[in-house]
Amino acid sequence: MSLLPTEPYRGTRDFLPREMSVREQVFGSVYRVLERYGYTRYDGPVLEPAEIYEAKSGQEIAHLQLYTLQDRSGRRLALRPEMTPSVARMIAGNAGTISFPARWYCNVNCHRYERPQRGRLREHWQVNADIFGSASLNAEIEIFELVHDLFAALGATRDMYAVRVSDRILLDWVIRSLVGVSADKVRLVSGLIDRWEKYPREVLQREASESGVTEDQFRTLDSALKSGPEIVGQVPAEVLRASPVAQLLSSPESARLFTFDPLIVRGFEYYNSTVFEVFDTDPANRRSLFGGGRYDDLTGLFSRQQIRGIGFAIGDVTLFDFLGTHGLLPGPEPEYEVAVLPTGPGLDDAARRVARVLRDAGLRTATALDGRRIGKQIPRAVKAGARAVVIIGPDDWSAGNVTVRDLATGEQHTVPYQDAARRLARP
Amino acid sequence: MSLLPTEPYRGTRDFLPREMSVREQVFGSVYRVLERYGYTRYDGPVLEPAEIYEAKSGQEIAHLQLYTLQDRSGRRLALRPEMTPSVARMIAGNAGTISFPARWYCNVNCHRYERPQRGRLREHWQVNADIFGSASLNAEIEIFELVHDLFAALGATRDMYAVRVSDRILLDWVIRSLVGVSADKVRLVSGLIDRWEKYPREVLQREASESGVTEDQFRTLDSALKSGPEIVGQVPAEVLRASPVAQLLSSPESARLFTFDPLIVRGFEYYNSTVFEVFDTDPANRRSLFGGGRYDDLTGLFSRQQIRGIGFAIGDVTLFDFLGTHGLLPGPEPEYEVAVLPTGPGLDDAARRVARVLRDAGLRTATALDGRRIGKQIPRAVKAGARAVVIIGPDDWSAGNVTVRDLATGEQHTVPYQDAARRLARP
Repeated sequence: MSLLPTEPYRGTRDFLPREMSVREQVFGSVYRVLERYGYTRYDGPVLEPAEIYEAKSGQEIAHLQLYTLQDRSGRRLALRPEMTPSVARMIAGNAGTISFPARWYCNVNCHRYERPQRGRLREHWQVNADIFGSASLNAEIEIFELVHDLFAALGATRDMYAVRVSDRILLDWVIRSLVGVSADKVRLVSGLIDRWEKYPREVLQREASESGVTEDQFRTLDSALKSGPEIVGQVPAEVLRASPVAQLLSSPESARLFTFDPLIVRGFEYYNSTVFEVFDTDPANRRSLFGGGRYDDLTGLFSRQQIRGIGFAIGDVTLFDFLGTHGLLPGPEPEYEVAVLPTGPGLDDAARRVARVLRDAGLRTATALDGRRIGKQIPRAVKAGARAVVIIGPDDWSAGNVTVRDLATGEQHTVPYQDAARRLARP
Repeated sequence: MSLLPTEPYRGTRDFLPREMSVREQVFGSVYRVLERYGYTRYDGPVLEPAEIYEAKSGQEIAHLQLYTLQDRSGRRLALRPEMTPSVARMIAGNAGTISFPARWYCNVNCHRYERPQRGRLREHWQVNADIFGSASLNAEIEIFELVHDLFAALGATRDMYAVRVSDRILLDWVIRSLVGVSADKVRLVSGLIDRWEKYPREVLQREASESGVTEDQFRTLDSALKSGPEIVGQVPAEVLRASPVAQLLSSPESARLFTFDPLIVRGFEYYNSTVFEVFDTDPANRRSLFGGGRYDDLTGLFSRQQIRGIGFAIGDVTLFDFLGTHGLLPGPEPEYEVAVLPTGPGLDDAARRVARVLRDAGLRTATALDGRRIGKQIPRAVKAGARAVVIIGPDDWSAGNVTVRDLATGEQHTVPYQDAARRLARP
């Protein structure tokens, strides 16, 4: 019989224990920060009705990047490509029993059918954090503070990343009133802005002109985007009042939290006001790490009750690239702390009894299952990252004793087995 | 526009924070026990090449219960229905760098296309724990000890469940040599035994006779199965030597760990020796909770190197039913411990400053985002399960003070804000 390949499906990953340990430590830090802010974890299905992605997500995701299938009763299903439509479904379905504002987070695997490349895979894990049911600027401020605290918990300093913020309310005014394109072209122009820094000006201009944007309009747009934060000075007062970001900008505190940048758009259509992206500042990895925003009609697909949301999603692929670039990835944790090594036949029950004492004291303890040669077992324990072994010899054991050896110092002591845990207690 | 339904896809579940908190607590206990034994966590993709399920899993899963799809390059993919083929793929692909014996665990969502019913859903979460690369009986003993320690950690006592064990090596001898059916009927007879307790004797007998099992053979099988553990007395010595379970039975210790039961078969084809199932003993829920076994040719599909495995998988649906039946499900944890409540405009920055002090002290702290009426905010904090609120009034704050109110006793104290965390420290 021919053998099957051992690689995971293209664009997906196996996490062996050494990789999983790193992932768990990084996400563990993220969870701790979120929980300190009062966010509680939720989860949902991988399979969702396909139609929930076709209305509000970016068009690209809905039509090209979706893994779909049909079940035998003819239901069209998709592997979730992102979490927002699922959480909107849950919030709408349970609005009567949820206390708002609600702070929720999750860590879910999402599938997108795209060509695997740096920062993009077909399956990735994504932490989503959102506040539901608050229209307050305090929600924006909390989300930005959270982002900074998350980076700090991961060991990143403020010079390693930049939080760039815009507001679709301002952007909309720029496009419609300042540039003056018709309503049907707003989405097109937003798309141009989204690609503003990635494409040469000529390409953007050609695209604009092909879609009926005049040269004059294009020039106005160009100079508006160039003016950066100063564009806000041209916006009429009633638009500013409607824009959370404009209001935040009027406080001197905002500079501590983010930089205003009219080039930030975000691809997802459900954002309708505050939008932001976090960039790596390292020249080798100058990319958007993740982003988020405010979507005031989160639940519109599912319910007539308007429930607002603001939040963000961090994918593991880009986050781990960032941490790697900046030397912030932790090493894998030891497989176990202590190995119990019986040195002869008939000592297996003894090994289990000793292991139980150590485990009861909270020590992660593995017993040797097969080999009896200490010279082979000790290197295995060292490779596992263990800090000590407990050796059970027949003579010692007949007196109820074991030998505790520190693998770092080589020091060893023969003690009654009940005292082995104490001997191993961290100082 | 018509609204989309808010229910999750049939047979899948949303885990809102209150449900997720219970799930996290239960699985947290499971992880702690596994880690005490030196098991390290791994993970893998939801999507796998469909062919890895078609060779070794039970036929039912491969042909009827698989969710499959095809990607645009024509690859046939399946949503993993179980983890064993994936982990076999990983072990085979990384055998050169893994130190054996290796103790691995995971918690993964698996999909099976079946009619949703009690204990069976289309998506469930499953903890797998396995030892790879050990042929020793110590591996069997460890797995059984682990099972008992897991139940103990979840609050279950020994009377609530039963561990029933058989060995396919013994079963095979019974079927081939004692009953004397031909090789091509072994699988059929195993299947009969697997359903022995679920179907009336006449149904089984008719099925057997239709497949060419004689009445005489059926009677021999019936009496062999009835004899229970005593069947071992009839097995020849060389078969007993090959059977881990027979060897374990010769130790008086085994009774502490499990009961021998020749009716245990397990559906998966990859098991080739020790097999076991854990049953709920409650008359209301007398079902198999989970099971496992030894598969000595785990990696055969992927590699010519033989690597043995022994382990088990616990699904969340049956486990949570068990815990519910026995009153062992924990309640949800509080959303947060402390709420910070500014009582007037202009105190939001103060609330954030106070919240930071509390979070730095390790307290899960939420600030009120919108409302300013204490009479509305306090019930929200109570509903969240908070044990205290910190109230910020304009007069107090002008002196740098806040009021800490214990929600259980109603007691309150006005203190300098830097002391709020100390005031809230658990005794």
